[in-house]
Amino acid sequence: MKILVTGFDPFGGEKVNPAIEAVKKLPDAIDGNEIIKLEVPTIFYQSAQVVKAKIEQEKPDMVINVGQAGGRSAITPERIAINFQAGSTPDNSGKGPKEGKIETDGADGYFTQLPIKQMVTAIRQVGIPAMVSNSAGTYVCNHLFYEVQYMRVHEFPDLKAGFIHIPFLPNQVKNGRRPSMSLNDMVTGLTAAIKEAIHD
Amino acid sequence: MKILVTGFDPFGGEKVNPAIEAVKKLPDAIDGNEIIKLEVPTIFYQSAQVVKAKIEQEKPDMVINVGQAGGRSAITPERIAINFQAGSTPDNSGKGPKEGKIETDGADGYFTQLPIKQMVTAIRQVGIPAMVSNSAGTYVCNHLFYEVQYMRVHEFPDLKAGFIHIPFLPNQVKNGRRPSMSLNDMVTGLTAAIKEAIHD
Amino acid sequence: MKILVTGFDPFGGEKVNPAIEAVKKLPDAIDGNEIIKLEVPTIFYQSAQVVKAKIEQEKPDMVINVGQAGGRSAITPERIAINFQAGSTPDNSGKGPKEGKIETDGADGYFTQLPIKQMVTAIRQVGIPAMVSNSAGTYVCNHLFYEVQYMRVHEFPDLKAGFIHIPFLPNQVKNGRRPSMSLNDMVTGLTAAIKEAIHD
Amino acid sequence: MKILVTGFDPFGGEKVNPAIEAVKKLPDAIDGNEIIKLEVPTIFYQSAQVVKAKIEQEKPDMVINVGQAGGRSAITPERIAINFQAGSTPDNSGKGPKEGKIETDGADGYFTQLPIKQMVTAIRQVGIPAMVSNSAGTYVCNHLFYEVQYMRVHEFPDLKAGFIHIPFLPNQVKNGRRPSMSLNDMVTGLTAAIKEAIHD
Repeated sequence: MKILVTGFDPFGGEKVNPAIEAVKKLPDAIDGNEIIKLEVPTIFYQSAQVVKAKIEQEKPDMVINVGQAGGRSAITPERIAINFQAGSTPDNSGKGPKEGKIETDGADGYFTQLPIKQMVTAIRQVGIPAMVSNSAGTYVCNHLFYEVQYMRVHEFPDLKAGFIHIPFLPNQVKNGRRPSMSLNDMVTGLTAAIKEAIHD
Repeated sequence: MKILVTGFDPFGGEKVNPAIEAVKKLPDAIDGNEIIKLEVPTIFYQSAQVVKAKIEQEKPDMVINVGQAGGRSAITPERIAINFQAGSTPDNSGKGPKEGKIETDGADGYFTQLPIKQMVTAIRQVGIPAMVSNSAGTYVCNHLFYEVQYMRVHEFPDLKAGFIHIPFLPNQVKNGRRPSMSLNDMVTGLTAAIKEAIHD
Repeated sequence: MKILVTGFDPFGGEKVNPAIEAVKKLPDAIDGNEIIKLEVPTIFYQSAQVVKAKIEQEKPDMVINVGQAGGRSAITPERIAINFQAGSTPDNSGKGPKEGKIETDGADGYFTQLPIKQMVTAIRQVGIPAMVSNSAGTYVCNHLFYEVQYMRVHEFPDLKAGFIHIPFLPNQVKNGRRPSMSLNDMVTGLTAAIKEAIHD
Repeated sequence: MKILVTGFDPFGGEKVNPAIEAVKKLPDAIDGNEIIKLEVPTIFYQSAQVVKAKIEQEKPDMVINVGQAGGRSAITPERIAINFQAGSTPDNSGKGPKEGKIETDGADGYFTQLPIKQMVTAIRQVGIPAMVSNSAGTYVCNHLFYEVQYMRVHEFPDLKAGFIHIPFLPNQVKNGRRPSMSLNDMVTGLTAAIKEAIHD
């Protein structure tokens, strides 16, 4: 099995993005299954194009996008991607999203194909906080999650795909007001989650 | 310089107490200053007696009590101990505290002698979330903090003393609803804080 | 125009449910449009049957289901209903939901037909906290929201439908640890939201 | 009995301060006891001078200062005033406080003379969220609370004094991210609290 795991590049004035930091530290293989790692730009549509090119090149069985959800205390596999984008913060292209549907002919929502409940259990079993999330928001994380689902429906019917949100790193929230998770714990948790998804 | 650092034993059905776990992993010396480690029972008054016996035996220059503050996201040096105890949860003796003053002739509050603002800066400089706390609560943490201050006033006038609260460990809050901090980060942060207090 | 507004009955040991309390206090007409009020049981599937019977009887142009989202600080119109139910808490029939899809042949998600962004603006204009929510959860609130959307697709194509979550009432959270909203403010906010939906 | 109740004027760009709004709406007498209302400037030291002048003029038996604690969900009578001030936000004089002790010869902390636990019970009995707070912070609220205690010790030994924090008003947090309380509920809760303090 071949698994493509992506992480966003740093965004919004942050020097690091825990997503790509954690993805880079994943093992290159899990139980003999190849882990392909890809950094994607935090840019609407462009992030999806970068992922699509990699899917066409590598033909993975599974795609897992990883992104930061600042303020959460846990690793949170996402249940559903929604066909809506909004947000006043500019992405890394300097522009915010055009508010509205991501794909005019897309479904309102697409469920992930990943076994998110079992993944949460697997993450907890290695001692790391985890819970299922029912909303990936309306910014670039949900956008990419939705676009990969839309590609799956229209072009890659055998693909399994999903999205995992991770917390801030400790050094992003040194003032202490918001929760964080160490990079090691993110890597441990993500590895357990991917392993579970492989063996589903 | 000799520094006594204490941590509470596991409490309230938890199998571990991050306080004593973190304290046990501190180095035995920081910049040539001896770190004496002591596990204290999570029991009103008895915890203070155990600390007092150790102070008399070791004659430390500084006492730092470490305890868990479940729900916090950061390492939080405490500013003030207050002469009040309450709480319906039994301590490890099986009884809760008698609600009211801790010491009938004690001051309402005692400030710590530790340089808490600089300690917070030092913790942040090693990348770990930290902030000053203005309340150690009214349970056994504040109790021990207060009792050590009361001892200082009455018996050990040269002592510097203070209290540092630490968050949950990740495996204590695996359901993901509350913030946590890795043991390594706690140890890194506490070490930086103690180093700062030594050089104050 | 005819608007059916529903509220759940008390649930989970609570003596009141702010949803039905607020719905009962709505005006009987808003700008000349009839407001029909309906109490629904906090029971999976049965709640939807009760609403369906009322839709068939009254033939409303719009259905707005109101439910409690304990822990939120604001009135939150929901964006999307998802085809998934779970939860270990028994509903008012004494049983929890069978975890999984609500309708085996339903879409993964259905967007509301209500102008939620404008409704949020209208609520704020009368001084009441409001924000769009991207998840109605996976319990009976989302269930009813989803079922009404499913009915709309299959039986009532002209219907506009949506769901609004409201906070706890103050007397439900007297210990002070969770946010609440006064009944008057709920009624003021809901009235403004419904008025906006009517004139959309 | 004569009770002086104070509220701060609007601060930090806000158009209203719930403290003075709520105080103005209190009854002029509670169970035959006169309630004297006073607006105080949100300015370090000057707020205390204004209160002192009123105490000298009116000779109240009790002083209750009311202030806003943005982010709290409940009415929170404060247990202790501490001899420390800090904060980078300018007060209404345009300057922030000089960080450090409020009174160089003052005690580290002073407990309130009000029956805060019973007041919390009384507030809850009228259906309003309440809890005791163990920290009034380090800004102008704690400052005034401390200064009144300091006056009490040095000049008005028979005075009973205390501080009550109240949440945001709904229209201060219309974006819905932070908790609030309606003005009516604040007045109801404060009235119950003052009544309890009178009959203590």
